[in-house]
Amino acid sequence: MATDFRLKNLLPDLTEKIVATYTPDDRINHLGHCPLPSYEAVAGILTDLKDVLYPGYRRKVGLHSGNIRYHVGGLIDQLHDSLTTQIARALRHEDRVRNSHSDCESDVDFEAKGQAMAIELLQRIADLRKILRTDVQAAYDGDPACQTTDEIVFCYPGFEAVSIYRIANQLHRLQVPFIPRMMTEWAHQRTGIDIHPGATIGDHFFIDHGTGVVIGETCEIGNHVKLYQGVTLGALSFPTDGDGALIRGTKRHPTIEDNVVIYASATILGGRTVIGHDSVIGSSVWITRSVSPFTTVTLEKPQLRVRGGAAISGTHDFDFQI
Amino acid sequence: MATDFRLKNLLPDLTEKIVATYTPDDRINHLGHCPLPSYEAVAGILTDLKDVLYPGYRRKVGLHSGNIRYHVGGLIDQLHDSLTTQIARALRHEDRVRNSHSDCESDVDFEAKGQAMAIELLQRIADLRKILRTDVQAAYDGDPACQTTDEIVFCYPGFEAVSIYRIANQLHRLQVPFIPRMMTEWAHQRTGIDIHPGATIGDHFFIDHGTGVVIGETCEIGNHVKLYQGVTLGALSFPTDGDGALIRGTKRHPTIEDNVVIYASATILGGRTVIGHDSVIGSSVWITRSVSPFTTVTLEKPQLRVRGGAAISGTHDFDFQI
Amino acid sequence: MATDFRLKNLLPDLTEKIVATYTPDDRINHLGHCPLPSYEAVAGILTDLKDVLYPGYRRKVGLHSGNIRYHVGGLIDQLHDSLTTQIARALRHEDRVRNSHSDCESDVDFEAKGQAMAIELLQRIADLRKILRTDVQAAYDGDPACQTTDEIVFCYPGFEAVSIYRIANQLHRLQVPFIPRMMTEWAHQRTGIDIHPGATIGDHFFIDHGTGVVIGETCEIGNHVKLYQGVTLGALSFPTDGDGALIRGTKRHPTIEDNVVIYASATILGGRTVIGHDSVIGSSVWITRSVSPFTTVTLEKPQLRVRGGAAISGTHDFDFQI
Repeated sequence: MATDFRLKNLLPDLTEKIVATYTPDDRINHLGHCPLPSYEAVAGILTDLKDVLYPGYRRKVGLHSGNIRYHVGGLIDQLHDSLTTQIARALRHEDRVRNSHSDCESDVDFEAKGQAMAIELLQRIADLRKILRTDVQAAYDGDPACQTTDEIVFCYPGFEAVSIYRIANQLHRLQVPFIPRMMTEWAHQRTGIDIHPGATIGDHFFIDHGTGVVIGETCEIGNHVKLYQGVTLGALSFPTDGDGALIRGTKRHPTIEDNVVIYASATILGGRTVIGHDSVIGSSVWITRSVSPFTTVTLEKPQLRVRGGAAISGTHDFDFQI
Repeated sequence: MATDFRLKNLLPDLTEKIVATYTPDDRINHLGHCPLPSYEAVAGILTDLKDVLYPGYRRKVGLHSGNIRYHVGGLIDQLHDSLTTQIARALRHEDRVRNSHSDCESDVDFEAKGQAMAIELLQRIADLRKILRTDVQAAYDGDPACQTTDEIVFCYPGFEAVSIYRIANQLHRLQVPFIPRMMTEWAHQRTGIDIHPGATIGDHFFIDHGTGVVIGETCEIGNHVKLYQGVTLGALSFPTDGDGALIRGTKRHPTIEDNVVIYASATILGGRTVIGHDSVIGSSVWITRSVSPFTTVTLEKPQLRVRGGAAISGTHDFDFQI
Repeated sequence: MATDFRLKNLLPDLTEKIVATYTPDDRINHLGHCPLPSYEAVAGILTDLKDVLYPGYRRKVGLHSGNIRYHVGGLIDQLHDSLTTQIARALRHEDRVRNSHSDCESDVDFEAKGQAMAIELLQRIADLRKILRTDVQAAYDGDPACQTTDEIVFCYPGFEAVSIYRIANQLHRLQVPFIPRMMTEWAHQRTGIDIHPGATIGDHFFIDHGTGVVIGETCEIGNHVKLYQGVTLGALSFPTDGDGALIRGTKRHPTIEDNVVIYASATILGGRTVIGHDSVIGSSVWITRSVSPFTTVTLEKPQLRVRGGAAISGTHDFDFQI
């Protein structure tokens, strides 16, 4: 009816057997005096940044003109320190991997570099607020189920994912390693929307529902673009070098010009594929070639097999589907 | 090797620059003395409600006939207070947006209204338990991988999403603003299943796997309906008024009658689309027109291109796919 | 302006009405002295196991050869106790359901059985680390956006889901009830990837992006297989017995042989469907029959309707799509 302590005595040997597998050059343990960025710290940075970008929604209520600067000033101070530390860790880690150091033996002042990048990000917050305002407007204009813009800021997963992408993309442009991807994967976990921080996305961008959306690293998306759930902007087969290893860094994902709408579960693939401005790609369409401006592409009559019942009513012209 | 304090002295100016962007009529800050509902409080309400709806599973173990009324009585008391506060906030917020008040200047007693709605919701719990019991039965009857009904209550994401939808839908019917959508987005984040609180759904409803399911605001779903992952019950193009603005509130999403099964990644669109009772919509079918009762719709032979290998074995009759 | 205490006096009656619905044989309450496994404890077990499987990434930093054995030894000790308790609860629950006991009246020593299974799982950790190392390598080899293998361990949802599946699958093989499914649903919630713990999966397995992937209970997957987001490896219609009840336990899901790549949103269904080794299944393909080795299956020219614009540029040969 209780634990057998003789069996429990096996544990020290078992521990030794596991510890023996943690070899220094192993790719699934990270030992040494050179820590990676902290996942929790990066999540905390995002929560703080969202509170600065759109205050009064989630965490702290009762903010008003009399106290807002103390609240935001405290957050900015804390963000400066936390961003500096985490970016320094990411830079040191990248340096170590690139130069195959066995441990933190570089002479570079990563903290100073981290601080400069942290301040640069914080200086971009006012501009980030400008573009996020256009994203909120696009969501309101694009969703008939939306009653007020507050709902969008408060709980739309598309806006959450795009907010975090925009932060991560700024860090990506500042050439901060590692952390941008941590951020967009944090958003991916919370929203089902996977936007690579290296993608380029214009203003007034809206993703409705969003679960399953994938936007690849080398996508270029214009202004006033709307996507629905399950849309993939992905790659065709990857080019490999003479040894069969992947060639990294080429444009593998499509370009979407201004004012394009892409409906649920459409799949658009390939680095040379351009969807021309003011086009509409219908639900479930699969496309790997370019489309000129002002084009509507929908599924032609689907090949359906209908058994029983009195057939499908209406004609199959699908004239109103977009 | 350390932070440069001269750089840190830039932060107060940087803070002022950000604070200057928080203008009173801005759509991405919510300042003033009139707080929005609290996201954490609403999440807490859902956790408490789930513990009342199906006690003994998640949070508190060791409940039995001798102590259950104290546990539930304490939760109901707490739910009364928390629901009253949060609904009052939502009502005051809606009033302010509708009437363009600059702050909380209405004379309406929103707490009294909130309390009445809170009690009305709590009075519906016994009925909610009745319908959730049918949902559990439907999951057990519909999933051959399920061993006991306890698994369903404990960890099936479809049951989680439907439970929270049913709570949110009751609040939606009571015309509580804002909070129903917060609740279904909380479920969406946890399950990948996005059910609008305004949808109408009958008893014995089961969603298997569920990631990517979208059920729109004006869907009407009968009894004994089963959906799989990736199913979209969505809208066609939205009607706009003379100024190009969306017309909100029309029926834009399909009607699914009793005893219908819809397999993975099927897409059914349009407010006039009716899937007749006892029909089956096969995996990956895309449909925008009505189907009569007792109909099976599957993909006809897909247009596949096969290269290499010795071709696909078997015939392409797909007779057993449903 | 405040709560009406007369209305609050309704709450005791309301509580009694709810408590009256908690009948002993009800499927949506779990009362009695025989607790289910704790969801929080199982989540804690997974967090501890991940720290043992790949130390130094997420929770504890600053681990090195001088302190790693204390850290891991402490975790193993804690895992032993926690696994023993939770497995014992799951075994007792299963016994009660199977034998229709009204409460915990069995004479079996479930703690002793739980301890044996707990130690068996811990003894398999070194082997689990071996296979997880191949999964990390496969992710690095398969994703051109990946810069270092550390990113994969740190934040790739596919690796997270596969790690937890591999733990859950070991418990499933040890015939631990209930807990394996809790574990994979925990992963499903965090990643959108739903792998049944009963599936069989070889080494070098990689799921990229991952949202919406479903891998059914009786799937058999070889070595060096790569899947993208939205792939379903699912069942056709379920066989039922003479009473219309589902027959549980037959092979309902496909077999995927070695070196197969399955692109985004492909759907492969049926227990007799075999995808031969070294084959490629293209994006959005829907298939319910077997494919011989070395075969590439892609969508033939899709039936698209193009309106406006100057048509789609390029030919529709799709030669480079895989």
